[in-house]
Amino acid sequence: MTSLKAGLKALAAAAALVLCTLPALAQADAPRTDPLPSWNEGATRQAIVDFVTRVTTEGGADFVPADQRLAVFDNDGTLWAEQPVYVQLFFAIDRIKELAPQHPEWQTTEPFASILKGDMKTALAGGTHAVAQIVGATHAGMTTDDFADIVAKWFADARNPVKDRKFSAMDYQPMLEVLAYLRANAFKTFIVSGGGIDFMRVFSQELYGIPPEQVIGSEGKLKFELKDGKPELVKLPDIAFVDDGPGKPVGIQMNIGREPIFAFGNSDGDLQMLQYTCLKPGPRFCGIVHHTDAAREWAYDRDSSIGHLDKALEAAQANDWTVVDMAADWKTVFPPEQ
Amino acid sequence: MTSLKAGLKALAAAAALVLCTLPALAQADAPRTDPLPSWNEGATRQAIVDFVTRVTTEGGADFVPADQRLAVFDNDGTLWAEQPVYVQLFFAIDRIKELAPQHPEWQTTEPFASILKGDMKTALAGGTHAVAQIVGATHAGMTTDDFADIVAKWFADARNPVKDRKFSAMDYQPMLEVLAYLRANAFKTFIVSGGGIDFMRVFSQELYGIPPEQVIGSEGKLKFELKDGKPELVKLPDIAFVDDGPGKPVGIQMNIGREPIFAFGNSDGDLQMLQYTCLKPGPRFCGIVHHTDAAREWAYDRDSSIGHLDKALEAAQANDWTVVDMAADWKTVFPPEQ
Repeated sequence: MTSLKAGLKALAAAAALVLCTLPALAQADAPRTDPLPSWNEGATRQAIVDFVTRVTTEGGADFVPADQRLAVFDNDGTLWAEQPVYVQLFFAIDRIKELAPQHPEWQTTEPFASILKGDMKTALAGGTHAVAQIVGATHAGMTTDDFADIVAKWFADARNPVKDRKFSAMDYQPMLEVLAYLRANAFKTFIVSGGGIDFMRVFSQELYGIPPEQVIGSEGKLKFELKDGKPELVKLPDIAFVDDGPGKPVGIQMNIGREPIFAFGNSDGDLQMLQYTCLKPGPRFCGIVHHTDAAREWAYDRDSSIGHLDKALEAAQANDWTVVDMAADWKTVFPPEQ
Repeated sequence: MTSLKAGLKALAAAAALVLCTLPALAQADAPRTDPLPSWNEGATRQAIVDFVTRVTTEGGADFVPADQRLAVFDNDGTLWAEQPVYVQLFFAIDRIKELAPQHPEWQTTEPFASILKGDMKTALAGGTHAVAQIVGATHAGMTTDDFADIVAKWFADARNPVKDRKFSAMDYQPMLEVLAYLRANAFKTFIVSGGGIDFMRVFSQELYGIPPEQVIGSEGKLKFELKDGKPELVKLPDIAFVDDGPGKPVGIQMNIGREPIFAFGNSDGDLQMLQYTCLKPGPRFCGIVHHTDAAREWAYDRDSSIGHLDKALEAAQANDWTVVDMAADWKTVFPPEQ
């Protein structure tokens, strides 16, 4: 080989190396842009970044293989606002008002009569029986397809009356960033919520980037039928599963079948999910969204019935879990309304 | 620029192009190797390939976006052998024999007495009550972690007594190829089985490449507990959900939340899953494994209680679903034993 030929070959090889690695370098650079721009610098943000770095560092003591990087999130109060009442209850109330003309008996039957008068306190005084009545009237007696259509139509325009903001823009920008950051690091993200599974699945993909099969929630019984040769699933008024409190680890086992290594909640209803995730050995992250921001969102914990936070906060302190101080840790709360 | 410099630059660019595209070419070539080597040429194999080609051809009339490519498979009799009885029943029988010294009362109590004598016919004559007794004694009263350990240990060595072959080598090689072929075409593959969910999850990843969160099955109730500060889920003897017959579409909706476009079963217990998948408009594939191979596997359909196939076969004929003739369509049945 002449030295010129050898030189050309070497040059070509070098050029190829540079050209081929450019896209790889660009990719490697990407994570250097801030994955959590809506989080203020501080211990909370650092705890999230440190954990993700630890479990994704190959050869590190806390490395976790990609297929075991499972992250679970409560929905109401953790991924989006839950005040003054759960979004799903707003849906149920609107639905009862819409159906009322077909149900004249509701004018004199609780809890419907009070709901139609706008008196939720009296309506809900009936406890679980009242809730079952509301769920039965608004979440059953139709196919799963029809229910999804009804929710989608409602959700397109419905607004939070206190903030005068679409519910679809009441999700938390910093938490959307956590979800995306985890997924960029090969985590599989799940919702584990006390809310109705068929309700959340209507918007989970669009709002959170979480597909329907990664949504775990409370469930009503379903019945399979062939109607004029077409298959359909009819929603029955009976509750099949309540995905709240000690139900959350059960829901995780039933639907995922292994333990998450990352969990985020905001209330005592998330305590057992956090315990299940973090009270075993190995690298685990547990976080709580503490609602401390009366100006931009709401401030509540021990004295609130919605999002009641007491025992889970104690557990967080005792076990060194990460507590988000919304007012201090979040640069912005909500994404821009579209 | 001198002509030498220009020549060098052009050469380097050409070299880079060749070097950079080589891996891409190799990848594009890969699908040209036969994805279904254990399937004989014929209409059955062609129906599978045609469907996958149609739904993955961008711009084609039947194109389905990757995130909607959901495929569901029955397990017993569809992905692995189910004769002379379900693998899980072999596990339960072995477990009862193992636990018998701690339960002297079983010597005189049905269904245990008959099981210990090897008389399964009498044992199962008690119907659902007998099954509930067997499940309660072998699948409950321990944590989910302990149960998984027990199954894993048993599964490592247990053998099918008729074929004298490990159960872990009684899966169907042609079906493993279908699973891999679908995943290579961006399908998400699920098991939807009447079998116990906690049982199947022990081997689903290793045997089928299906992770625990994509296994849907029958479920017992679970109870969350903190024991000495450690979280655990205790398996209770009560049945929570039976994922069979009309339960299969319900299980699909509860766990996936949208309709599959590809389904494979082998018995009347799969009829509703096949109807749910294929009796709606749009490109859909439904397949049935017909056990026609007495020499290499088993031959059975209408007269068998295990894997009873009658109505689903009629539906397949009426709706033009694909029926696998095991003897004619499969070059090999089982993978090599390891």
